Amino acid sequence: MNLRLADIAQSVQALRTEGPLDRVIQNFASLAEATESDLSFFADPRYESTLYQTRAGAVLVPEDLSLRKPLPEGPTWLYVKQPEHVFYTLVQRYRAQPLPGWGQEPHAFIHPTATISEKSYIGAFAYIGEGAQISEGAWIFPFAYIGARVQIGSGTIVYPHAVLMPDTVIGPNCIIHPGAIVGADGFGFYKGEHRIYERIPQVGRVILEAEVEVGANTCVDRATLGTTYLAEGVKLDNLIQIGHNVRIGPHTAIAAQTGIAGSSSVGAYCRIGGQVGIADHVHIAERTSITAQSGISKSITTPGRSWRGAPAQEVRQQLLMEAIMRKLPELYPRILQLEKILTQS
Amino acid sequence: MNLRLADIAQSVQALRTEGPLDRVIQNFASLAEATESDLSFFADPRYESTLYQTRAGAVLVPEDLSLRKPLPEGPTWLYVKQPEHVFYTLVQRYRAQPLPGWGQEPHAFIHPTATISEKSYIGAFAYIGEGAQISEGAWIFPFAYIGARVQIGSGTIVYPHAVLMPDTVIGPNCIIHPGAIVGADGFGFYKGEHRIYERIPQVGRVILEAEVEVGANTCVDRATLGTTYLAEGVKLDNLIQIGHNVRIGPHTAIAAQTGIAGSSSVGAYCRIGGQVGIADHVHIAERTSITAQSGISKSITTPGRSWRGAPAQEVRQQLLMEAIMRKLPELYPRILQLEKILTQS
Amino acid sequence: MNLRLADIAQSVQALRTEGPLDRVIQNFASLAEATESDLSFFADPRYESTLYQTRAGAVLVPEDLSLRKPLPEGPTWLYVKQPEHVFYTLVQRYRAQPLPGWGQEPHAFIHPTATISEKSYIGAFAYIGEGAQISEGAWIFPFAYIGARVQIGSGTIVYPHAVLMPDTVIGPNCIIHPGAIVGADGFGFYKGEHRIYERIPQVGRVILEAEVEVGANTCVDRATLGTTYLAEGVKLDNLIQIGHNVRIGPHTAIAAQTGIAGSSSVGAYCRIGGQVGIADHVHIAERTSITAQSGISKSITTPGRSWRGAPAQEVRQQLLMEAIMRKLPELYPRILQLEKILTQS
Repeated sequence: MNLRLADIAQSVQALRTEGPLDRVIQNFASLAEATESDLSFFADPRYESTLYQTRAGAVLVPEDLSLRKPLPEGPTWLYVKQPEHVFYTLVQRYRAQPLPGWGQEPHAFIHPTATISEKSYIGAFAYIGEGAQISEGAWIFPFAYIGARVQIGSGTIVYPHAVLMPDTVIGPNCIIHPGAIVGADGFGFYKGEHRIYERIPQVGRVILEAEVEVGANTCVDRATLGTTYLAEGVKLDNLIQIGHNVRIGPHTAIAAQTGIAGSSSVGAYCRIGGQVGIADHVHIAERTSITAQSGISKSITTPGRSWRGAPAQEVRQQLLMEAIMRKLPELYPRILQLEKILTQS
Repeated sequence: MNLRLADIAQSVQALRTEGPLDRVIQNFASLAEATESDLSFFADPRYESTLYQTRAGAVLVPEDLSLRKPLPEGPTWLYVKQPEHVFYTLVQRYRAQPLPGWGQEPHAFIHPTATISEKSYIGAFAYIGEGAQISEGAWIFPFAYIGARVQIGSGTIVYPHAVLMPDTVIGPNCIIHPGAIVGADGFGFYKGEHRIYERIPQVGRVILEAEVEVGANTCVDRATLGTTYLAEGVKLDNLIQIGHNVRIGPHTAIAAQTGIAGSSSVGAYCRIGGQVGIADHVHIAERTSITAQSGISKSITTPGRSWRGAPAQEVRQQLLMEAIMRKLPELYPRILQLEKILTQS
Repeated sequence: MNLRLADIAQSVQALRTEGPLDRVIQNFASLAEATESDLSFFADPRYESTLYQTRAGAVLVPEDLSLRKPLPEGPTWLYVKQPEHVFYTLVQRYRAQPLPGWGQEPHAFIHPTATISEKSYIGAFAYIGEGAQISEGAWIFPFAYIGARVQIGSGTIVYPHAVLMPDTVIGPNCIIHPGAIVGADGFGFYKGEHRIYERIPQVGRVILEAEVEVGANTCVDRATLGTTYLAEGVKLDNLIQIGHNVRIGPHTAIAAQTGIAGSSSVGAYCRIGGQVGIADHVHIAERTSITAQSGISKSITTPGRSWRGAPAQEVRQQLLMEAIMRKLPELYPRILQLEKILTQS
């Protein structure tokens, strides 16, 4: 990649520029890691200090930039609308590897009753089961298992070793990352005679709406009866467990290794940290934030609050409690001393 | 599915019925979600209130039903022995997808020394290694890896992308869910010179007795020497880690994302919640219950108790401690006040 | 296996022996589990008591053995340098299954532009992508996915169902365990209009230096820009999450189910327990030890310390805090009593 800065400035419709435009940009980097052949961007005011130290050749900055200090002279500054968006659009255009073209690699197994758009990619060793439907513009990578009657929406990517068990419905523009398993049986048993577990048949399914991402090795269990449901724009990181009959509202993002037990629901626009545990049959109101490693065993009914701890409390209360807990080693002998004074008097 | 209620009542040997029997049942649902074309069931007295609100067309109830209020008139009530069992037997019969018939799909790799029952299913892209044995009535799904000398019991299901490493023994009627990995190397090293980790060869194996389930993407490591052992009826949920040389007793169930470190053992009939951590070389007595997210670093020697917290205590003690912890923010200034009074006096 | 003890003594260059050498050794076992046909070893003085109780036929002991009691007469004692190393070398030689010989099994997919050493093993259903390089002495097991331009070092093992996404670099003598996923996209989004998540393209890569192990179903995400980096000798257990742009220093070992969020770094020679969570943009100093289930949300700057708890403190402080927390149920009524006395007086 060799891009003249003047050409970049033009292509991103820079509102104005400061500094030389005859530089050549060879790569993209964060402000902290950039060198003089890199383009970078500034978006988050919390990291303003990195602006004054960056060695980037050029930096995309917001048109309404307001700073505590004047900008240094080293980099060329390009003022644009939405620098983060502009930056990642350039990264995508110049650095992302292209996805494979349409067509089928050898060694795929395609059931004769499956329906496959000619404008799709089917990798080697992909398995497309009975009655499955692969829409136009979908990519099915090697070793993907597309079970019977599974529907894959247009523009959706199913990466290597992903497993979509029978009857799963995947909407358009989803990404199923490697090793993700959607539609395996839920963990459902009832106590039979002699305290033996009897299986509850898991005959429901999983539906993913548009623009959902399921991270690497994440598991989304099928419903016992009915549907496990991930609404539009839900983003799941890696190694997450989503139990049977769980429902997650639009544009909620969940970080790695979190688990949500059966029949719970999470509202729209929530942000859930990593390694969080959410018990079964619990509801989380929309726009809730949950700190990493928290444990939620009761429903959260008020929208828009932040929770932390296990068992979780609202964040301010939990932080206060934690602060006092850390004082206990110093407080404890003082309490004993008070007791001594009082019982002696 | 269209079943006349009269036929259902007869097939389940209803002891008596209340309400019309000429209805047509089209599906199965929980009491909360059922509509008038659904059959449901009632088993857990804790959810009695849902009985009075259900819109189900018919409900299976226990013969010895004892309620606080009279049953409403909407649904038809079918009195049976073991309504939960009857309900799920019907679900299994009418809604579960049949497993594939016996035979081999194309593109399987079968080592010439492997022994495979003619009454088994081998999916496309299954790999059956040297000397492996597949018993009558076993299902080996696509992309299953059956390593050298692995034995698969009769009636056992190995779902897509499950990996059974060499020498693993799987008993009859087990279910290995997608992506589960049984028999990978344990995490064993010793400190060599210059503080470098040297590998401990992992030459033991894994044995699963009958009726064991291993959840999606769960890992059960082979023993260093000897055997990692899951007894009859053990049920493991998804994304669980079972370390080398662990032993788990009969009919113990473990929820998702729990980890048990090397050489620990768990007794029979235990119930372990999700995201629990159990340290190495620890023993958990039989019939122990452990709350989700707990941490067990010492052996539990008394059977039948419930534990909670990290580090865990018996549940009552832990709940008491948690309750007082939550009072700390309010208690702390009062302690400071006491101190002030006493030091001033 | 039938080995005369005299032959073993000679082959391990025993410095001296006590007890009969005409015994036949058939297997290897730990001191606690060994019987008279087993060879065992003693290395860790904490387990000295097992020495006096073992029923092993022979035991490797250090040349500078210093004990509280005389050794019992049952076993034959072989004095050697580094008994642990000698023992596991014998286990590896006599009990480990040999890896497959060089060559290709049928049904592999090998892109015509891939470079594959003739002295390597390519299993059935392996996928070797465009421009990938497989070095001499590498083993690629069935169902391994080797993406475009991936480099596999000499002596490296890629076990079944491991996924190496494009551009990943794996050094020599690494082990990628079954189901591990290296180089999947990081979890990176920015808030677009209407609070919708927009993808940040993940165009970086993953580099593993020599002797790295990646456990079963563990995920190591590719960098957003730049490199996710595991230095020489890093050992990762199963089901671990390593976020984008994470860097881990040489010879650090991490136990199962731990997660490290994006852009954090861990120094050399650290020991991190299972189910630990490390937040994003945090640095852990070298030689840090972290107890299982801890949560690290701030950088640890002093090397060589031990941390515990969530949020973590230095281990002594945390243990003290935990001890007092457990006293709270008994302390609380005493505080109320003090208050009562003071307010009444």
